[in-house]
Amino acid sequence: MTYCVGVLLDDGLVMASDSRTSAGVDNIATFRKMTILEKPDRHLICLLSAGNLSLTQSAVSLIGEWATGKKAELNINKAKTMFRVARIVGQALREVYQDDAESLKAHGGEFNANFILGGQIKGERARLFHVYSAGNFIEATAETPFFQIGETKYGKPVFDRLLKQSMPLAEAAKLVLISFDSTMRSNLSVGLPIDLLCYEGGSLAVEHYRQLDEADGYLAGIRRQWGEGLKRVFTGIAPPDLDG
Amino acid sequence: MTYCVGVLLDDGLVMASDSRTSAGVDNIATFRKMTILEKPDRHLICLLSAGNLSLTQSAVSLIGEWATGKKAELNINKAKTMFRVARIVGQALREVYQDDAESLKAHGGEFNANFILGGQIKGERARLFHVYSAGNFIEATAETPFFQIGETKYGKPVFDRLLKQSMPLAEAAKLVLISFDSTMRSNLSVGLPIDLLCYEGGSLAVEHYRQLDEADGYLAGIRRQWGEGLKRVFTGIAPPDLDG
Repeated sequence: MTYCVGVLLDDGLVMASDSRTSAGVDNIATFRKMTILEKPDRHLICLLSAGNLSLTQSAVSLIGEWATGKKAELNINKAKTMFRVARIVGQALREVYQDDAESLKAHGGEFNANFILGGQIKGERARLFHVYSAGNFIEATAETPFFQIGETKYGKPVFDRLLKQSMPLAEAAKLVLISFDSTMRSNLSVGLPIDLLCYEGGSLAVEHYRQLDEADGYLAGIRRQWGEGLKRVFTGIAPPDLDG
Repeated sequence: MTYCVGVLLDDGLVMASDSRTSAGVDNIATFRKMTILEKPDRHLICLLSAGNLSLTQSAVSLIGEWATGKKAELNINKAKTMFRVARIVGQALREVYQDDAESLKAHGGEFNANFILGGQIKGERARLFHVYSAGNFIEATAETPFFQIGETKYGKPVFDRLLKQSMPLAEAAKLVLISFDSTMRSNLSVGLPIDLLCYEGGSLAVEHYRQLDEADGYLAGIRRQWGEGLKRVFTGIAPPDLDG
Protein backbone atom coordinates (compact mmCIF):
# COMPACT_ATOMS: atom_id res chain seq x y z
CA MET A 1 0.00 0.00 0.00
CA THR A 2 0.96 3.60 -0.49
CA TYR A 3 0.22 6.91 1.17
CA CYS A 4 1.05 10.23 -0.48
CA VAL A 5 -0.10 13.75 0.33
CA GLY A 6 0.25 17.09 -1.41
CA VAL A 7 -0.80 20.35 0.29
CA LEU A 8 -1.10 23.73 -1.43
CA LEU A 9 -0.39 26.66 0.89
CA ASP A 10 -0.19 30.41 0.53
CA ASP A 11 3.53 29.97 1.20
CA GLY A 12 4.14 27.07 -1.21
CA LEU A 13 3.74 23.30 -1.19
CA VAL A 14 4.28 20.38 1.18
CA MET A 15 4.63 17.03 -0.58
CA ALA A 16 5.18 13.70 1.17
CA SER A 17 5.20 10.00 0.29
CA ASP A 18 5.81 6.70 2.04
CA SER A 19 8.17 4.08 0.61
CA ARG A 20 6.43 0.74 0.97
CA THR A 21 5.59 -1.36 -2.06
CA SER A 22 4.11 -4.78 -1.75
CA ALA A 23 3.37 -7.45 -4.29
CA GLY A 24 1.58 -9.79 -1.91
CA VAL A 25 2.44 -10.05 1.75
CA ASP A 26 5.60 -12.06 1.17
CA ASN A 27 7.28 -9.51 -1.07
CA ILE A 28 7.57 -6.14 0.61
CA ALA A 29 10.12 -3.72 -0.72
CA THR A 30 11.08 -0.06 -0.42
CA PHE A 31 10.76 2.24 -3.42
CA ARG A 32 10.72 6.00 -3.52
CA LYS A 33 7.41 7.32 -4.74
CA MET A 34 8.57 10.93 -4.98
CA THR A 35 10.18 12.23 -8.16
CA ILE A 36 11.59 15.76 -8.19
CA LEU A 37 12.32 17.50 -11.48
CA GLU A 38 14.26 20.66 -10.78
CA LYS A 39 15.53 23.29 -13.17
CA PRO A 40 16.73 26.08 -10.89
CA ASP A 41 15.22 29.46 -11.58
CA ARG A 42 12.91 27.92 -14.25
CA HIS A 43 10.77 25.24 -12.60
CA LEU A 44 10.38 22.88 -9.67
CA ILE A 45 8.11 19.89 -10.30
CA CYS A 46 7.31 17.13 -7.80
CA LEU A 47 5.43 13.92 -8.60
CA LEU A 48 4.02 11.49 -6.00
CA SER A 49 2.75 8.15 -7.28
CA ALA A 50 0.30 5.48 -6.15
CA GLY A 51 -0.98 2.35 -7.82
CA ASN A 52 0.91 -0.24 -9.84
CA LEU A 53 4.60 0.63 -9.54
CA SER A 54 5.44 -0.71 -13.02
CA LEU A 55 2.93 1.72 -14.53
CA THR A 56 3.90 4.82 -12.56
CA GLN A 57 7.63 4.15 -13.07
CA SER A 58 7.05 3.78 -16.82
CA ALA A 59 5.12 7.05 -16.92
CA VAL A 60 7.93 8.86 -15.08
CA SER A 61 10.50 7.35 -17.45
CA LEU A 62 8.49 8.53 -20.45
CA ILE A 63 8.27 12.06 -19.04
CA GLY A 64 12.05 11.96 -18.63
CA GLU A 65 12.61 10.79 -22.22
CA TRP A 66 10.22 13.37 -23.60
CA ALA A 67 12.11 16.10 -21.71
CA THR A 68 15.11 15.49 -23.96
CA GLY A 69 13.08 14.83 -27.10
CA LYS A 70 11.87 16.88 -30.02
CA LYS A 71 8.15 17.17 -29.36
CA ALA A 72 7.73 20.52 -27.60
CA GLU A 73 4.20 19.74 -26.42
CA LEU A 74 5.49 16.71 -24.47
CA ASN A 75 8.56 18.43 -23.05
CA ILE A 76 8.21 19.67 -19.47
CA ASN A 77 11.20 21.97 -20.03
CA LYS A 78 9.14 23.83 -22.59
CA ALA A 79 5.86 23.81 -20.65
CA LYS A 80 4.90 27.37 -19.74
CA THR A 81 2.31 26.44 -17.10
CA MET A 82 1.75 23.68 -14.55
CA PHE A 83 -1.49 22.96 -16.40
CA ARG A 84 0.63 21.95 -19.42
CA VAL A 85 2.80 19.76 -17.18
CA ALA A 86 -0.34 18.04 -15.86
CA ARG A 87 -1.36 17.38 -19.47
CA ILE A 88 2.06 15.81 -20.15
CA VAL A 89 1.77 13.57 -17.07
CA GLY A 90 -1.72 12.53 -18.24
CA GLN A 91 -0.36 11.86 -21.73
CA ALA A 92 2.39 9.67 -20.29
CA LEU A 93 -0.23 7.62 -18.41
CA ARG A 94 -2.23 7.22 -21.62
CA GLU A 95 0.82 5.98 -23.51
CA VAL A 96 1.56 3.46 -20.74
CA TYR A 97 -2.10 2.42 -20.92
CA GLN A 98 -1.75 1.77 -24.66
CA ASP A 99 1.31 -0.36 -24.02
CA ASP A 100 0.34 -2.29 -20.91
CA ALA A 101 -3.38 -2.28 -20.16
CA GLU A 102 -4.42 -5.18 -22.39
CA SER A 103 -1.71 -7.57 -21.19
CA LEU A 104 -2.33 -6.50 -17.61
CA LYS A 105 -6.04 -7.26 -17.98
CA ALA A 106 -5.27 -10.68 -19.53
CA HIS A 107 -3.32 -11.48 -16.35
CA GLY A 108 -6.13 -10.31 -14.08
CA GLY A 109 -4.47 -7.01 -13.25
CA GLU A 110 -6.00 -3.59 -13.18
CA PHE A 111 -4.68 -0.38 -14.72
CA ASN A 112 -4.23 1.65 -11.55
CA ALA A 113 -1.81 4.58 -11.58
CA ASN A 114 -2.34 7.95 -9.89
CA PHE A 115 -0.14 10.97 -9.44
CA ILE A 116 -0.16 14.00 -7.22
CA LEU A 117 1.63 16.71 -9.17
CA GLY A 118 2.83 19.84 -7.44
CA GLY A 119 5.18 22.56 -8.53
CA GLN A 120 5.80 25.96 -9.95
CA ILE A 121 6.97 27.34 -13.28
CA LYS A 122 8.51 30.81 -13.43
CA GLY A 123 5.80 33.41 -14.02
CA GLU A 124 3.07 31.35 -12.30
CA ARG A 125 2.20 30.70 -8.68
CA ALA A 126 2.70 27.18 -7.23
CA ARG A 127 -0.09 24.76 -8.24
CA LEU A 128 -1.22 21.29 -7.22
CA PHE A 129 -3.00 18.60 -9.30
CA HIS A 130 -4.32 15.06 -8.94
CA VAL A 131 -3.80 13.10 -12.18
CA TYR A 132 -5.97 9.98 -12.49
CA SER A 133 -5.27 6.67 -14.23
CA ALA A 134 -7.19 7.83 -17.31
CA GLY A 135 -4.89 10.84 -17.66
CA ASN A 136 -7.54 13.38 -16.68
CA PHE A 137 -6.86 15.58 -13.68
CA ILE A 138 -8.22 18.06 -11.15
CA GLU A 139 -6.53 21.06 -9.56
CA ALA A 140 -6.52 21.97 -5.86
CA THR A 141 -8.51 25.05 -4.90
CA ALA A 142 -8.94 27.14 -1.75
CA GLU A 143 -11.87 24.94 -0.69
CA THR A 144 -9.84 21.71 -0.99
CA PRO A 145 -6.17 22.64 -0.87
CA PHE A 146 -4.86 19.07 -0.46
CA PHE A 147 -4.82 15.75 -2.29
CA GLN A 148 -4.17 12.27 -0.95
CA ILE A 149 -3.58 9.08 -2.94
CA GLY A 150 -3.29 5.43 -1.86
CA GLU A 151 -4.47 4.65 1.67
CA THR A 152 -6.22 8.00 2.10
CA LYS A 153 -8.89 7.64 4.75
CA TYR A 154 -7.12 7.07 8.08
CA GLY A 155 -5.12 10.26 7.62
CA LYS A 156 -7.92 12.51 6.32
CA PRO A 157 -9.72 13.54 9.56
CA VAL A 158 -6.73 15.57 10.80
CA PHE A 159 -6.68 17.54 7.55
CA ASP A 160 -10.45 18.09 7.69
CA ARG A 161 -10.05 19.46 11.21
CA LEU A 162 -6.77 21.34 11.19
CA LEU A 163 -5.53 22.32 7.73
CA LYS A 164 -5.48 26.01 6.84
CA GLN A 165 -4.05 27.27 3.58
CA SER A 166 -2.53 30.19 5.45
CA MET A 167 -0.38 27.88 7.63
CA PRO A 168 3.40 28.31 7.48
CA LEU A 169 5.18 25.47 5.63
CA ALA A 170 6.58 23.97 8.83
CA GLU A 171 3.13 23.81 10.50
CA ALA A 172 1.69 22.06 7.44
CA ALA A 173 4.66 19.67 7.42
CA LYS A 174 3.88 18.82 11.07
CA LEU A 175 0.26 18.13 10.13
CA VAL A 176 1.32 15.96 7.20
CA LEU A 177 3.56 13.90 9.49
CA ILE A 178 0.71 13.46 12.01
CA SER A 179 -1.49 12.28 9.15
CA PHE A 180 1.22 9.77 8.18
CA ASP A 181 1.45 8.57 11.78
CA SER A 182 -2.33 7.92 11.91
CA THR A 183 -2.16 6.08 8.60
CA MET A 184 0.82 3.93 9.54
CA ARG A 185 -0.76 2.96 12.86
CA SER A 186 -3.95 1.75 11.15
CA ASN A 187 -2.39 0.21 8.02
CA LEU A 188 0.92 -1.54 8.60
CA SER A 189 1.54 -1.79 4.85
CA VAL A 190 2.20 1.95 4.69
CA GLY A 191 5.82 2.25 5.71
CA LEU A 192 8.87 4.37 6.42
CA PRO A 193 10.94 6.15 5.26
CA ILE A 194 8.86 9.23 4.44
CA ASP A 195 10.08 11.58 1.72
CA LEU A 196 9.18 15.14 2.69
CA LEU A 197 9.55 18.15 0.41
CA CYS A 198 8.66 21.61 1.67
CA TYR A 199 8.70 23.99 -1.25
CA GLU A 200 8.81 27.73 -0.67
CA GLY A 201 6.75 29.44 -3.35
CA GLY A 202 8.88 31.56 -5.68
CA SER A 203 12.16 29.80 -4.84
CA LEU A 204 12.04 27.57 -7.95
CA ALA A 205 14.48 25.22 -6.24
CA VAL A 206 14.66 22.34 -3.75
CA GLU A 207 15.61 24.07 -0.53
CA HIS A 208 13.92 21.89 2.11
CA TYR A 209 13.94 18.16 1.59
CA ARG A 210 14.13 15.45 4.26
CA GLN A 211 13.87 11.71 4.41
CA LEU A 212 12.47 10.50 7.76
CA ASP A 213 13.12 6.94 8.91
CA GLU A 214 12.77 4.89 12.12
CA ALA A 215 15.76 6.64 13.63
CA ASP A 216 14.30 10.11 13.12
CA GLY A 217 13.95 11.90 16.44
CA TYR A 218 11.31 14.39 15.31
CA LEU A 219 9.05 11.67 13.93
CA ALA A 220 9.37 9.66 17.16
CA GLY A 221 8.57 12.83 19.13
CA ILE A 222 5.48 13.61 17.07
CA ARG A 223 4.19 10.06 17.52
CA ARG A 224 4.60 10.24 21.27
CA GLN A 225 3.29 13.80 21.70
CA TRP A 226 0.28 13.31 19.43
CA GLY A 227 -0.60 9.97 21.01
CA GLU A 228 -0.23 11.30 24.56
CA GLY A 229 -2.05 14.50 23.67
CA LEU A 230 -5.03 12.62 22.26
CA LYS A 231 -5.15 10.49 25.39
CA ARG A 232 -5.14 13.64 27.52
CA VAL A 233 -7.96 15.26 25.52
CA PHE A 234 -9.96 12.03 25.67
CA THR A 235 -9.52 11.74 29.42
CA GLY A 236 -10.53 15.37 29.86
CA ILE A 237 -13.95 14.87 28.28
CA ALA A 238 -16.68 13.68 30.65
CA PRO A 239 -18.28 10.35 29.74
CA PRO A 240 -21.90 10.41 28.61
CA ASP A 241 -24.85 9.70 30.83
CA LEU A 242 -25.69 6.22 29.55
CA ASP A 243 -29.40 6.77 29.96
CA GLY A 244 -29.67 10.11 28.14
CA MET B 1 -23.39 5.18 3.61
CA THR B 2 -23.44 3.53 6.98
CA TYR B 3 -21.25 3.47 10.04
CA CYS B 4 -21.73 0.90 12.82
CA VAL B 5 -19.44 -0.10 15.68
CA GLY B 6 -19.52 -2.88 18.25
CA VAL B 7 -17.07 -2.96 21.17
CA LEU B 8 -16.54 -5.89 23.52
CA LEU B 9 -15.48 -4.85 27.02
CA ASP B 10 -14.79 -6.62 30.28
CA ASP B 11 -17.94 -4.89 31.55
CA GLY B 12 -20.19 -5.67 28.57
CA LEU B 13 -20.83 -4.26 25.12
CA VAL B 14 -21.18 -0.87 23.43
CA MET B 15 -23.09 -0.98 20.14
CA ALA B 16 -23.79 2.04 17.94
CA SER B 17 -25.15 2.77 14.47
CA ASP B 18 -25.92 5.78 12.30
CA SER B 19 -29.26 6.19 10.54
CA ARG B 20 -28.48 7.39 7.05
CA THR B 21 -29.49 5.33 4.04
CA SER B 22 -28.97 6.58 0.54
CA ALA B 23 -30.01 5.26 -2.82
CA GLY B 24 -28.18 7.83 -4.89
CA VAL B 25 -27.57 11.37 -3.70
CA ASP B 26 -31.12 12.52 -4.37
CA ASN B 27 -32.78 9.96 -2.14
CA ILE B 28 -31.50 10.11 1.41
CA ALA B 29 -33.60 8.65 4.16
CA THR B 30 -33.34 7.69 7.78
CA PHE B 31 -33.61 4.06 8.84
CA ARG B 32 -32.59 2.45 12.05
CA LYS B 33 -29.78 -0.01 11.56
CA MET B 34 -29.90 -1.36 15.11
CA THR B 35 -32.19 -4.25 16.00
CA ILE B 36 -32.48 -5.34 19.62
CA LEU B 37 -33.90 -8.74 20.50
CA GLU B 38 -34.51 -8.89 24.22
CA LYS B 39 -35.82 -11.70 26.35
CA PRO B 40 -35.27 -10.49 29.91
CA ASP B 41 -33.29 -12.86 32.09
CA ARG B 42 -32.69 -15.17 29.08
CA HIS B 43 -30.88 -13.21 26.37
CA LEU B 44 -30.07 -9.79 24.95
CA ILE B 45 -29.11 -9.74 21.29
CA CYS B 46 -28.20 -6.65 19.25
CA LEU B 47 -27.73 -6.56 15.48
CA LEU B 48 -26.15 -3.68 13.54
CA SER B 49 -26.42 -3.78 9.76
CA ALA B 50 -24.55 -2.37 6.78
CA GLY B 51 -24.91 -2.92 3.06
CA ASN B 52 -28.06 -3.16 0.96
CA LEU B 53 -30.98 -2.29 3.28
CA SER B 54 -33.41 -4.59 1.46
CA LEU B 55 -31.13 -7.54 2.15
CA THR B 56 -30.38 -6.78 5.80
CA GLN B 57 -34.04 -6.01 6.55
CA SER B 58 -35.07 -9.32 4.94
CA ALA B 59 -32.52 -11.22 7.01
CA VAL B 60 -33.78 -9.58 10.22
CA SER B 61 -37.39 -10.40 9.25
CA LEU B 62 -36.44 -14.02 8.64
CA ILE B 63 -34.74 -14.25 12.04
CA GLY B 64 -37.95 -12.89 13.56
CA GLU B 65 -40.14 -15.41 11.73
CA TRP B 66 -37.86 -18.29 12.66
CA ALA B 67 -38.05 -17.22 16.33
CA THR B 68 -41.75 -18.17 16.34
CA GLY B 69 -41.35 -21.22 14.10
CA LYS B 70 -40.81 -24.91 14.59
CA LYS B 71 -37.21 -25.40 13.54
CA ALA B 72 -35.27 -25.31 16.80
CA GLU B 73 -31.92 -24.89 15.07
CA LEU B 74 -33.11 -21.62 13.47
CA ASN B 75 -34.80 -20.28 16.59
CA ILE B 76 -32.80 -17.69 18.55
CA ASN B 77 -35.02 -18.33 21.57
CA LYS B 78 -33.68 -21.88 21.67
CA ALA B 79 -30.06 -21.02 20.91
CA LYS B 80 -27.90 -21.89 23.90
CA THR B 81 -24.86 -19.86 22.83
CA MET B 82 -24.15 -16.67 20.91
CA PHE B 83 -22.17 -18.85 18.50
CA ARG B 84 -25.47 -20.54 17.59
CA VAL B 85 -27.12 -17.13 17.16
CA ALA B 86 -24.32 -16.11 14.78
CA ARG B 87 -25.00 -19.28 12.79
CA ILE B 88 -28.69 -18.34 12.58
CA VAL B 89 -27.84 -14.82 11.35
CA GLY B 90 -25.51 -16.35 8.76
CA GLN B 91 -28.22 -18.79 7.72
CA ALA B 92 -30.70 -15.94 7.28
CA LEU B 93 -28.23 -14.14 4.99
CA ARG B 94 -27.81 -17.33 2.95
CA GLU B 95 -31.56 -17.69 2.54
CA VAL B 96 -31.82 -14.06 1.40
CA TYR B 97 -28.97 -14.76 -0.99
CA GLN B 98 -30.88 -17.71 -2.48
CA ASP B 99 -33.92 -15.49 -2.96
CA ASP B 100 -32.41 -12.23 -4.16
CA ALA B 101 -28.82 -12.55 -5.40
CA GLU B 102 -29.55 -13.60 -8.98
CA SER B 103 -32.12 -10.88 -9.67
CA LEU B 104 -29.92 -8.33 -7.96
CA LYS B 105 -26.98 -9.32 -10.20
CA ALA B 106 -29.19 -9.11 -13.31
CA HIS B 107 -29.90 -5.50 -12.35
CA GLY B 108 -26.23 -4.69 -11.81
CA GLY B 109 -26.49 -4.87 -8.02
CA GLU B 110 -24.17 -6.56 -5.60
CA PHE B 111 -25.06 -8.85 -2.71
CA ASN B 112 -23.66 -6.76 0.12
CA ALA B 113 -25.04 -7.34 3.63
CA ASN B 114 -23.01 -7.33 6.83
CA PHE B 115 -23.93 -7.58 10.48
CA ILE B 116 -22.23 -6.85 13.75
CA LEU B 117 -23.83 -9.16 16.28
CA GLY B 118 -23.39 -8.59 19.98
CA GLY B 119 -25.14 -10.03 22.96
CA GLN B 120 -25.31 -12.47 25.78
CA ILE B 121 -27.23 -15.64 26.51
CA LYS B 122 -27.71 -16.75 30.10
CA GLY B 123 -24.87 -19.04 31.13
CA GLU B 124 -22.36 -17.42 28.78
CA ARG B 125 -20.36 -14.18 28.87
CA ALA B 126 -21.21 -11.40 26.39
CA ARG B 127 -19.79 -12.03 22.91
CA LEU B 128 -19.33 -10.04 19.71
CA PHE B 129 -19.30 -11.25 16.08
CA HIS B 130 -18.94 -9.87 12.57
CA VAL B 131 -21.18 -11.79 10.15
CA TYR B 132 -20.25 -11.39 6.47
CA SER B 133 -22.43 -11.39 3.35
CA ALA B 134 -21.60 -15.06 2.74
CA GLY B 135 -22.95 -15.99 6.18
CA ASN B 136 -19.55 -16.83 7.63
CA PHE B 137 -18.40 -14.90 10.69
CA ILE B 138 -15.55 -14.02 13.02
CA GLU B 139 -15.61 -13.38 16.76
CA ALA B 140 -13.96 -10.51 18.61
CA THR B 141 -10.99 -11.41 20.80
CA ALA B 142 -8.86 -9.60 23.35
CA GLU B 143 -6.45 -8.57 20.56
CA THR B 144 -9.23 -7.01 18.46
CA PRO B 145 -12.18 -6.30 20.74
CA PHE B 146 -14.13 -4.16 18.24
CA PHE B 147 -15.75 -4.43 14.83
CA GLN B 148 -16.76 -1.70 12.42
CA ILE B 149 -18.90 -1.99 9.29
CA GLY B 150 -19.74 0.49 6.53
CA GLU B 151 -17.54 3.59 6.36
CA THR B 152 -14.92 2.17 8.71
CA LYS B 153 -11.64 3.95 8.11
CA TYR B 154 -12.07 7.55 9.26
CA GLY B 155 -13.14 6.40 12.71
CA LYS B 156 -10.58 3.63 13.21
CA PRO B 157 -7.46 5.56 14.31
CA VAL B 158 -9.06 6.62 17.63
CA PHE B 159 -9.83 2.98 18.45
CA ASP B 160 -6.32 1.90 17.49
CA ARG B 161 -4.92 4.54 19.84
CA LEU B 162 -7.31 4.63 22.77
CA LEU B 163 -9.49 1.53 23.13
CA LYS B 164 -8.88 -0.72 26.13
CA GLN B 165 -11.06 -3.72 26.87
CA SER B 166 -10.88 -2.81 30.55
CA MET B 167 -12.57 0.58 29.99
CA PRO B 168 -15.85 1.26 31.78
CA LEU B 169 -18.89 1.23 29.50
CA ALA B 170 -19.29 5.01 29.63
CA GLU B 171 -15.66 5.64 28.62
CA ALA B 172 -16.02 3.29 25.66
CA ALA B 173 -19.31 5.00 24.73
CA LYS B 174 -17.44 8.33 24.71
CA LEU B 175 -14.78 6.85 22.42
CA VAL B 176 -17.44 5.42 20.10
CA LEU B 177 -19.08 8.85 19.81
CA ILE B 178 -15.72 10.49 19.03
CA SER B 179 -15.21 7.87 16.32
CA PHE B 180 -18.64 8.75 14.91
CA ASP B 181 -17.78 12.44 14.98
CA SER B 182 -14.57 11.84 12.95
CA THR B 183 -16.51 9.70 10.47
CA MET B 184 -19.35 12.17 10.04
CA ARG B 185 -16.94 15.07 9.49
CA SER B 186 -15.09 13.21 6.70
CA ASN B 187 -18.10 11.51 5.07
CA LEU B 188 -21.27 13.57 5.02
CA SER B 189 -23.34 10.56 3.98
CA VAL B 190 -22.98 9.08 7.48
CA GLY B 191 -25.71 10.80 9.46
CA LEU B 192 -27.52 11.35 12.73
CA PRO B 193 -29.32 10.17 14.76
CA ILE B 194 -26.98 7.68 16.39
CA ASP B 195 -28.47 4.66 18.16
CA LEU B 196 -26.34 3.85 21.20
CA LEU B 197 -26.73 0.75 23.33
CA CYS B 198 -24.51 0.23 26.38
CA TYR B 199 -25.03 -3.29 27.63
CA GLU B 200 -23.90 -4.26 31.13
CA GLY B 201 -22.64 -7.83 31.06
CA GLY B 202 -24.86 -10.15 33.10
CA SER B 203 -27.91 -7.87 33.08
CA LEU B 204 -29.62 -9.74 30.21
CA ALA B 205 -31.73 -6.65 29.57
CA VAL B 206 -31.70 -3.27 27.82
CA GLU B 207 -30.82 -0.88 30.61
CA HIS B 208 -28.92 1.86 28.81
CA TYR B 209 -30.15 2.92 25.39
CA ARG B 210 -30.03 6.40 23.86
CA GLN B 211 -30.71 7.96 20.51
CA LEU B 212 -28.53 11.02 19.85
CA ASP B 213 -29.63 13.63 17.30
CA GLU B 214 -28.61 17.17 16.29
CA ALA B 215 -30.18 18.61 19.42
CA ASP B 216 -28.15 16.37 21.75
CA GLY B 217 -26.07 18.49 24.09
CA TYR B 218 -23.52 15.79 24.92
CA LEU B 219 -22.80 15.09 21.26
CA ALA B 220 -22.38 18.81 20.54
CA GLY B 221 -20.05 19.07 23.56
CA ILE B 222 -17.92 16.14 22.46
CA ARG B 223 -17.56 17.61 18.96
CA ARG B 224 -16.42 20.94 20.34
CA GLN B 225 -14.15 19.55 23.07
CA TRP B 226 -12.50 16.95 20.83
CA GLY B 227 -12.00 19.45 18.00
CA GLU B 228 -10.57 22.13 20.31
CA GLY B 229 -8.46 19.56 22.17
CA LEU B 230 -6.89 18.30 18.94
CA LYS B 231 -6.12 21.85 17.91
CA ARG B 232 -4.48 22.46 21.30
CA VAL B 233 -2.34 19.31 21.04
CA PHE B 234 -1.38 20.21 17.47
CA THR B 235 -0.36 23.73 18.45
CA GLY B 236 1.65 22.36 21.37
CA ILE B 237 3.93 20.27 19.16
CA ALA B 238 6.94 22.10 17.75
CA PRO B 239 7.13 22.20 13.95
CA PRO B 240 9.89 20.19 12.27
CA ASP B 241 13.18 21.64 11.13
CA LEU B 242 12.52 21.67 7.40
CA ASP B 243 16.09 20.81 6.54
CA GLY B 244 16.49 17.78 8.86
